[in-house]
Amino acid sequence: MDKNEALKQYHEWQDKQKAYALALQTMGFDRLTIAPKDGVEYYAKQYAYLAGELFSIATDPKICELLTGLSRQDLAEADRRSVQLDLREFERWNRIPKQEFVDFTEAQNLSEAKWEEAKAKNDYAIFEPHLQRMIGYTKKFAHYRDPQKDAYDLLLGDYEEGMDQKQYDEFFRGIRENLLPLIHEVAAHQERVSDACLHGEWPVPQQELVMKHLQEYLGFDPAWGYMGVSVHPFTDGLSHGDVRVTTAYQTDHVESAVFSIIHEVGHAIFEHDINPQFHGTVLGNVTSGLHESQSRLFENYLGRSQAFWRCNYPFLQQTFPDNLKNVSSEEFVRAVNVSRPSLVRTEADELTYPIHILIRYEMEKEIFKGDADLSHLDVLWNQKMKEYLGVDVPDDAHGILQDTHWSDASFGYFPTYALGSAYAAQFYEAMKQELDVDALLAEGGFAQISAWLREHVHQDGALHTPKEVVQRATGKPFDPSIYIQYLSRKYRTLYQL
Amino acid sequence: MDKNEALKQYHEWQDKQKAYALALQTMGFDRLTIAPKDGVEYYAKQYAYLAGELFSIATDPKICELLTGLSRQDLAEADRRSVQLDLREFERWNRIPKQEFVDFTEAQNLSEAKWEEAKAKNDYAIFEPHLQRMIGYTKKFAHYRDPQKDAYDLLLGDYEEGMDQKQYDEFFRGIRENLLPLIHEVAAHQERVSDACLHGEWPVPQQELVMKHLQEYLGFDPAWGYMGVSVHPFTDGLSHGDVRVTTAYQTDHVESAVFSIIHEVGHAIFEHDINPQFHGTVLGNVTSGLHESQSRLFENYLGRSQAFWRCNYPFLQQTFPDNLKNVSSEEFVRAVNVSRPSLVRTEADELTYPIHILIRYEMEKEIFKGDADLSHLDVLWNQKMKEYLGVDVPDDAHGILQDTHWSDASFGYFPTYALGSAYAAQFYEAMKQELDVDALLAEGGFAQISAWLREHVHQDGALHTPKEVVQRATGKPFDPSIYIQYLSRKYRTLYQL
Repeated sequence: MDKNEALKQYHEWQDKQKAYALALQTMGFDRLTIAPKDGVEYYAKQYAYLAGELFSIATDPKICELLTGLSRQDLAEADRRSVQLDLREFERWNRIPKQEFVDFTEAQNLSEAKWEEAKAKNDYAIFEPHLQRMIGYTKKFAHYRDPQKDAYDLLLGDYEEGMDQKQYDEFFRGIRENLLPLIHEVAAHQERVSDACLHGEWPVPQQELVMKHLQEYLGFDPAWGYMGVSVHPFTDGLSHGDVRVTTAYQTDHVESAVFSIIHEVGHAIFEHDINPQFHGTVLGNVTSGLHESQSRLFENYLGRSQAFWRCNYPFLQQTFPDNLKNVSSEEFVRAVNVSRPSLVRTEADELTYPIHILIRYEMEKEIFKGDADLSHLDVLWNQKMKEYLGVDVPDDAHGILQDTHWSDASFGYFPTYALGSAYAAQFYEAMKQELDVDALLAEGGFAQISAWLREHVHQDGALHTPKEVVQRATGKPFDPSIYIQYLSRKYRTLYQL
Repeated sequence: MDKNEALKQYHEWQDKQKAYALALQTMGFDRLTIAPKDGVEYYAKQYAYLAGELFSIATDPKICELLTGLSRQDLAEADRRSVQLDLREFERWNRIPKQEFVDFTEAQNLSEAKWEEAKAKNDYAIFEPHLQRMIGYTKKFAHYRDPQKDAYDLLLGDYEEGMDQKQYDEFFRGIRENLLPLIHEVAAHQERVSDACLHGEWPVPQQELVMKHLQEYLGFDPAWGYMGVSVHPFTDGLSHGDVRVTTAYQTDHVESAVFSIIHEVGHAIFEHDINPQFHGTVLGNVTSGLHESQSRLFENYLGRSQAFWRCNYPFLQQTFPDNLKNVSSEEFVRAVNVSRPSLVRTEADELTYPIHILIRYEMEKEIFKGDADLSHLDVLWNQKMKEYLGVDVPDDAHGILQDTHWSDASFGYFPTYALGSAYAAQFYEAMKQELDVDALLAEGGFAQISAWLREHVHQDGALHTPKEVVQRATGKPFDPSIYIQYLSRKYRTLYQL
């Protein structure tokens, strides 16, 4: 086939996928934010049917032929990479029988709903059979795909191109060896930094005002961005002109919603910055680690800095006069950086955070070893929390039920949070060599920070591998020691160690 | 083909449609409530593609064969009616070229967005070319369907089975001749009833509390019902377990949101009450007139009664102490029944309301006459408002731009509002013969009213024609004079005429 004709057919095939993908994304967002619970079974059936239609389009044998033909042609950079990634996706799915995929998708939606119910009722037994089903499907699908390969390695590679257990083992060894001793040292000097000012009551209507203020400061524009509420905050890029974030309010502490919205807006700005041509194609589908590097960069490196709050604290203080009238900006920033072993990942401080990830990584390795006894994952969870962080898990809502990821079979996602945090350290260091980041944060010049990220990290989407992006943006290969050093320096200073 | 095999194939075909319909409904609801505006073009393209897929399913020549075969078989009542209605739908669409349908659907979505923009900016010129396009498509599609038949008759029949201009002319003649004189008489005695207590400021957060209270009173349960906010309030039944309503707040008067939510909950309870087996099939798709009979019944016959507010006024009063502390429940109910020629249909009183509809009906007749000059529909609108209601339209936002219906080509829908109001009068009369409606309203026994409606009107969905439903529920044929009498009696009493 003539190259141009092949490209035309390729782009038509992409267009079909866009339509189904947008429908499924919209339905998913709706379900997680506003849909009444009684509709979930009807919804799950229809969602699975449409996912099956998309599956048929993506695994059409003719498309394999077309992609293989194109991969041998001399193509422009974007088409070449796009064909390569689409072939990889084809290989990922095409050996799974369609009906099993449809059944899995329906089960996945019901599992998510049951997780939500189990978490609300603090009852792991409600969720446990669904979790087992998700594990079962994931193992089976990995086996269809490549019976010779380690299932967990396949999953890790899906979420972060080029990663596997060997590399993650090495990465987490660095975390464990360097950060665990520091965490214990900090824990021994808890009294040096106080977060007492974060206690008290923080009514939701005022928190909503703070959300609006932060969105404006960060450049999250209502013309293309929407904020909803969900049990577990997330971001969803529906198109270049339609990116959604969600948040979850807690009335007993304000920093949960504050840092979660800064985190999600980091994802959202990434989505919005991607070349609009790429949206809905595989080039718009950025790997998790790279994506998390931006959310974690926003949340921690920028969002927990003194400079950030120089600009934003006055608004927070005036919105919560009862809580903050006697609290200085410096005191507030110290408080939101307190490090203390705790139960919930999304609310963990920067230093203990990667240990929460390490625990999930070890559990997922265990789950996919094949011979592991999976009947007491809740107990295993609690043991590891005790072992690494020294905390006693009081109930499953604060233990194994806290995260949504396993409920929809996103096994292999967690490690990308830690990896992304490490990428972020390197981006942050590079950015500071070109911009006076603190001055920009303090003066409300966030747009310039965004512009740097757009140019160096965001705009090309998945055109390059994550490692290539790190190299291009920072001028050197990925180096996790930058992350370790950043955390050590930050927490040694804060705790005067 | 064996009957059972044919039925099996028929039900499989219905299942496919359900999936696409749910996707499109969810996308539509999302767009009208929360979606950021910049995403509309991408959205419209994908929506149109999927609508095209559904179009292909609905107009598959094989399905025509299957339906025709089934229509000759001896079927159970539900299948028989369902096949009949599906054949009618097939005839409605199958002569339209698919690509034209897809283009129309995309244009329809953009038109809706432009209407919203035009209304917000109070600028008819933004919307006018889109309106012309919607008219053009509608005429063309009617011509494809049946070049011999009057286009507007086809549309009227789509929204209310069995209706056409001849019948509506007769119906509206009754309205015009009997109600216009009464409207003028009432207008001459404006001073006899005051709505001064409705003036003032009504903050949105308190209005939200009232919405919650009313939903609970009416039995709109969050387990299956969700309430959102949109420019134009509407109801969307996604499934038996998922029915949505929207509202729109105005801070200068509370009764707008109050009666609009009662109206929409009337639609919602109808949707929820339909036999769950019917949902997503043509039997779940109730005609507009019958549907509006329930929303108008809730809003006016029940919602504007003294008995309704005996139960609900204390909450309203305590939520708005500044506005209502010196206003009695009786005074409030008289105020929300004030009749006065006004500009906006959705806020019109019960008596002038059908005149707003009459105006739209006459305009639509004009639009579809074929030789009408359509270049000054805004002027025509204003002329008719002056002629019938004696009001001067100050701007297009309060004139031709006020309603969303023409923006998505729902020509022929408006008349069903008046027809539904008339059905409602007859249902209300019949219900009062079996139930002590006022006592139930006053004592919070709304569930019993709902149960009567479920049994006599809701549960069978579209299993019977609207006229059959009226006959079955009230024991006599549809009689619009009941509506005229109801309004005459009510307003003669209120204004002491």
